[in-house]
This record gives sequence, C-alpha cells and structure tokens, in this order.
Amino acid sequence: MNKKIAVIKGDGIGPEIIEESVKVLKKIEDKFGHSFELIYVDAGGAAIDKCGKALPQETIDVCLASDSVLLGAVGGPKYDSQPAENRPERALLGIRSLLGLYANLRPAKLFDQLRDASPLREEIVDAGIDFMVVRELTGGVYFGDHVTEEKDGEAVAYDVMKYSESEVKRIAKVAFDTARLRGKKVCSVDKANVLDSSKLWRKVVVEVAKDYPDVELSHMYVDNAAMQLCKNPAQFDVILTENMFGDILSDEASMITGTIGTIPSASFGDSTRGMYEPIHGSAPDIAGMDMANPIGTILSVAMMMKYSFHMENEAKVIEEAVGKVLDQGYRTKDMESANTTVIGCKEMGDRIAELI
Amino acid sequence: MNKKIAVIKGDGIGPEIIEESVKVLKKIEDKFGHSFELIYVDAGGAAIDKCGKALPQETIDVCLASDSVLLGAVGGPKYDSQPAENRPERALLGIRSLLGLYANLRPAKLFDQLRDASPLREEIVDAGIDFMVVRELTGGVYFGDHVTEEKDGEAVAYDVMKYSESEVKRIAKVAFDTARLRGKKVCSVDKANVLDSSKLWRKVVVEVAKDYPDVELSHMYVDNAAMQLCKNPAQFDVILTENMFGDILSDEASMITGTIGTIPSASFGDSTRGMYEPIHGSAPDIAGMDMANPIGTILSVAMMMKYSFHMENEAKVIEEAVGKVLDQGYRTKDMESANTTVIGCKEMGDRIAELI
Ligand SMILES: CC(C)[C@H](C(=O)O)[C@@H](O)C(=O)O
Ligand SMILES: CC(C)[C@H](C(=O)O)[C@@H](O)C(=O)O
Repeated sequence: MNKKIAVIKGDGIGPEIIEESVKVLKKIEDKFGHSFELIYVDAGGAAIDKCGKALPQETIDVCLASDSVLLGAVGGPKYDSQPAENRPERALLGIRSLLGLYANLRPAKLFDQLRDASPLREEIVDAGIDFMVVRELTGGVYFGDHVTEEKDGEAVAYDVMKYSESEVKRIAKVAFDTARLRGKKVCSVDKANVLDSSKLWRKVVVEVAKDYPDVELSHMYVDNAAMQLCKNPAQFDVILTENMFGDILSDEASMITGTIGTIPSASFGDSTRGMYEPIHGSAPDIAGMDMANPIGTILSVAMMMKYSFHMENEAKVIEEAVGKVLDQGYRTKDMESANTTVIGCKEMGDRIAELI
Repeated sequence: MNKKIAVIKGDGIGPEIIEESVKVLKKIEDKFGHSFELIYVDAGGAAIDKCGKALPQETIDVCLASDSVLLGAVGGPKYDSQPAENRPERALLGIRSLLGLYANLRPAKLFDQLRDASPLREEIVDAGIDFMVVRELTGGVYFGDHVTEEKDGEAVAYDVMKYSESEVKRIAKVAFDTARLRGKKVCSVDKANVLDSSKLWRKVVVEVAKDYPDVELSHMYVDNAAMQLCKNPAQFDVILTENMFGDILSDEASMITGTIGTIPSASFGDSTRGMYEPIHGSAPDIAGMDMANPIGTILSVAMMMKYSFHMENEAKVIEEAVGKVLDQGYRTKDMESANTTVIGCKEMGDRIAELI
C-alpha cells in the first residue's frame, strides 16, 4: 500500500524519537512491500523558530492531504514568553481541532518486563494493568471560550467547559466500540454531582449504551477515579472521559504502568486519518543527549498501522519487536532497573528496527 | 473556653462517625475544662428526608452563629433523583459558599503504622509522604454559571471555570502561610498552557510569592501533578491549587497514604469559624454496620481545635491518641493488614477517647 504520512518532529527530544520511529517505518516498508511517503512539516517551537508561527498554514494543508500524521512532541520553556495564541501547545490543539480528531486513545498497559518500574505495590501490579483511556479531544474546557477581562477594578479570567449531545455521543460510541474488542466494560468518568456538562455527558452515555447491551457500563466521579487508578487499576477496561479529566487521568494511568516513555496514543475523528504521538512531552532537559525513550513513538507508529491503515500484522510485528528488546534487558535511562542494560535512544531504535 | 459547635451528621456513615467524634470532644471538654455546646442541625439527604430541602435556612443560621461546624458526610444513591439544585452535594457547596470557606486544607500524611496500606512501593513510601493540599473551595468551575440549553436542535451544557485576582490572592496567601509553618515550599498546580483562568492563577501566585521570599515557589501542570503524586510524593510540601484540580488531586493524595478513612480536612475563610469534615464520603454501603473508620472525623476535630480554637495542645493530644491506638494494632476494616486486630467504629472511637 502507498500511504502519505505527515511527520512533525517538534521540539526537545521530538526530532530524536521521530528519527528512531522512521527507522521502524522503513523496516515495515521493506518487509511488507508498502510505500510510505514521509512529508516533514513543522509545528510548535520549531515552527516559531523558522517562521514565527506555531502552526503554519502549510503544516495544516499537508496534514489534511496526508493519510496520517506522526508527531514527536512540542513545547519548551524557550517559548513560555510567546503570546497565548502562539504557544507550541496551541499548535497541538489547533491540529487536533482542524483535523477533527475528537477521539484520543491512550492505552495503559504494563509491560511484564517493566513491572519493577511501576510505582505501585506488587500485589496491585499482579492483578494486572491493561486498560484504555478514551479521551474526548476537541471539546470541553480546552475549546470553550477563554476570556480575561477587567471587572470591578481587577482581572477576572474564565474558561468555558462545554459539551453538546452530539459531541458526547460520538466519543461514547468510540468507547463502546473499543470495549467490544476488549473486555466489554466501559467506565464513564464525570463530575455529574456538580457540573451541568457532566450531567449531560452521563445522560448521553447512558443513551448510547442502549445500543451496546453486550458492554457493561458504570459511572465514576473523577475524584474517585483518580483514587481507583492507584488502588485497583485492574478493575478498568475502557475509561471514557471528557478532555480535561482525560488529560489528568491518562497521565496518572501512564505513570502507574511504570514509565510514560513507552505509552503511545492515537487521535482520530470520522475518517481513518489520525494523529499518532507518544503521550510524554518534549523533555527539553535531555534533548540531544541520546537519552530519550523512543518506544512511545514507535508504538504510536504501531497504532497508526492498526487504526489508520488496518495493518494489523504490521502493528503486531512492531509490538513484538519492542517486547523482544525489553526481554533482552535493554532499557533507556528512564526505564532503568536492576539487571538491565541501559542504552541510548539511537541504539534502542536500531535494536527494535533490527528485530522487525 | 466556651465554644458553640454546629454538628451536621449527614447521611450514610455520617451519624456513626460523628458519634465517635463527639466522644472525643467530650473527653477534651473534661480534660481541659472547656465547654463545647453542640447544636445538631441537618443538611444533605437527612434534611431532604425531614423537610424536603437539602440545606434548610435553620442550618445556615445555626452554622453562622457558631464558632465552628463539624460535618460527617452527605449524599447517597437514594437522592440521585433529586433535582440538581436540591442534591445533598449542593448543601455542602452551599455551606462552603455561604460561610465564605474559600480555603480547604487536606493533609496527606502517611501514618507510619499504616505504611502497608499505601498502594505505592516501599521505596517510594520510605522517602516519606507528608504534604498539605491547599484547595481553593468557593470559586472555579464549581461556582461559575451552570447552564443546560437547547441549541441547533440538541442539548448543550456548559460550566464556567472562573477566577478573579482577589480570589486567587487570598488562597495563595493561605498556602504560603501554611508553607511557612512547614517545609517552606509551595507547588502551585494549574493548566496555564491551556486555560485563561490558570494563566491568571499563575500570575497572581507569582505576585503573592514576592511577599514570601523565604518560601520556594514552583509551578506544575495538573496532568504532571497527577503523575508526580504517584511517582515521587516526597517532593511535595504544600500543593496549592484551584477547586476542581484540588478535588481530584487531594483524593489521589489521600489514597497514596493508604486509606482515605483517616484523612481529615479543614475549610475556612477570613474568620476563625471553619468547617471540619473527613474527606471520605458517606459510604452508604456500610452505613449502620459499625464498620466505618471514625479517624478522619476525629482528626478533623483535632484540626478544629488547632485552626479555629487555637488549642494546639488539645489537637496534639487527639492526634497522639489516634497514633497510640494504631500502635496497639487496632484497625477498622478498611485499614486491615497482616498482624492487626480489626475492630468496629464504636470500639475505635471508645479506644481513642479513652487514651485522651
Ligand atoms: C500539551 C497539552 C496542551 C496537552 C493537553 O493537555 O492535551 C498534553 O498534556 C496532552 O495530554 O496531550
Ligand atoms: C461531594 C462533592 C461535591 C465534593 C467536591 O467535589 O468538592 C467532594 O468530592 C469533596 O471533595 O469534598
């Protein structure tokens, strides 16, 4: 198959981890006879440095004309003084919104080889950590009005957390569909005892659930969910939640699996075009030091194969290669534990690509 | 000293845990020659059952005329069908707001005796968990407009997350003052890379910090904070955050200390009148079974002594009594671990009161 992939290296460790993922893409091309046309475009700090704008029009155009987007990471303290609307993070939010990527899938799965890296006790880890966070990505307080104004002689700022029925409906469907292919359980997280948007959320989710009688639905308040992720993560199969809660809970979820360096993510909308990126940030403190963990990005490539290109087998081969390298005891610095060999970002990429 | 205390038993396990706390209050009265006048009033489900209203005017009046308020817990599935504005939770929010309790202090401290109950690994627990979450309690998305409306043929709901300069300023001061009496570090948690209210939050906190050159200030995004609480809780001294983030993070924080059953909280405003309550909920599933953990409420009484009545010694005596009972190996069911003796709520209350 021929596929066009827009590649955004981004900032900090972004370029390094993308480089290793490209090695993997090339190996998949060779091995399976595909042709991936990689089109490099800029967004975030790198784009600000080049042309002053965090999200140039060309980048949007190329993304829209591609079959999928691969992103490293954006942002860094260097850009903190940018005006709000031109911060690297805004570029990320802009792409999500302009491409209509309302669904964000973030797997929280503990690699057996990384058990020791989980901050949770062995008994809890033993019960298993393997769930998927389905986060709504283009609504809620991220995309409602943001206003700062003068009122009664002082500054007042507000952000609007907003959801419509149809926005909730489409993401709920994604969660139930995802659950059908997994453990058939959806836990919808909200704050319906306080928020109107959560009340609507819960009502619509209950409606959608009627079309999925084979999937078990439960509801949990977000504060309780933050606790349960530490106490008993084995109870979860699919967690469905809105944008802001999903941001918080998916980060907590990734941490309990040991290292956020290994967690990929997929964002998509109604078409097969998706954006794939590791959930970790741009880590400017270790940029250029060959210390970054490329696995989150490489597994994001695997998600791209599966979700955008329906290349199940290609995805599996990548995942297996990652598993093998971990089996052999190789770790980047962030995953270090007793009896393991620490290697650099490049060597990790080489070893994974080699095993494909 | 003579003090008037408004006592709200609430729902579920509320009445049981309040009963044990009252035993403690009586012992403190006797031992230190104080006189505590307890005025029982209703709020939440219990009030709905009696008079149809979750927050009767009489309750508000009595609270306002008291030196402090002691609350068990409110809410339960029985009241889920109440209209939004009459839910038990609304009574809680109403009291917080009407009494001007903008500051909520939630200590996250691991009792040495309960180390085994923490879901975190020993190495992490060994590093120590002892910090204070200072949560803004009368602003943000809890108290902005809540609207559900029909738009373009479908329901749309929104909630407004709003902060003014003065609201941020006063809670920031509480955090810095708290830090001064502790480890002299404040970590302010926000989502300033996305939200206007967070940007204002950060700006004001930075301003307030100038009056506290002896206190170290850092900033953290809320998603990262949710991770760091699991990864390295020892890094925190005082966490300062807005209402919703505080709800989520303080629950996560309490969980890592082992059991939410032991965590007290204090809410106050500009006067010494505060409201004191455990952070756990009404646990209707175990209500009336003599299984509840009264320690969170008893330690809330200790916080009342300290923060509202400036009775440092009385607070210490209560805390020490709790420590001794745990030392002796007594636990309520929720704290059970190897080599401990499980006792009921009443016996736990009796034993603690006896040691005062
Ligand atoms: C960088 C930031 C805007 C972003 C978000 O909050 O969505 C990030 O934290 C994420 O989770 O992808
Ligand atoms: C019951 C609920 C409204 C409340 C809150 O969210 O503030 C509770 O979770 C708390 O933290 O005290």
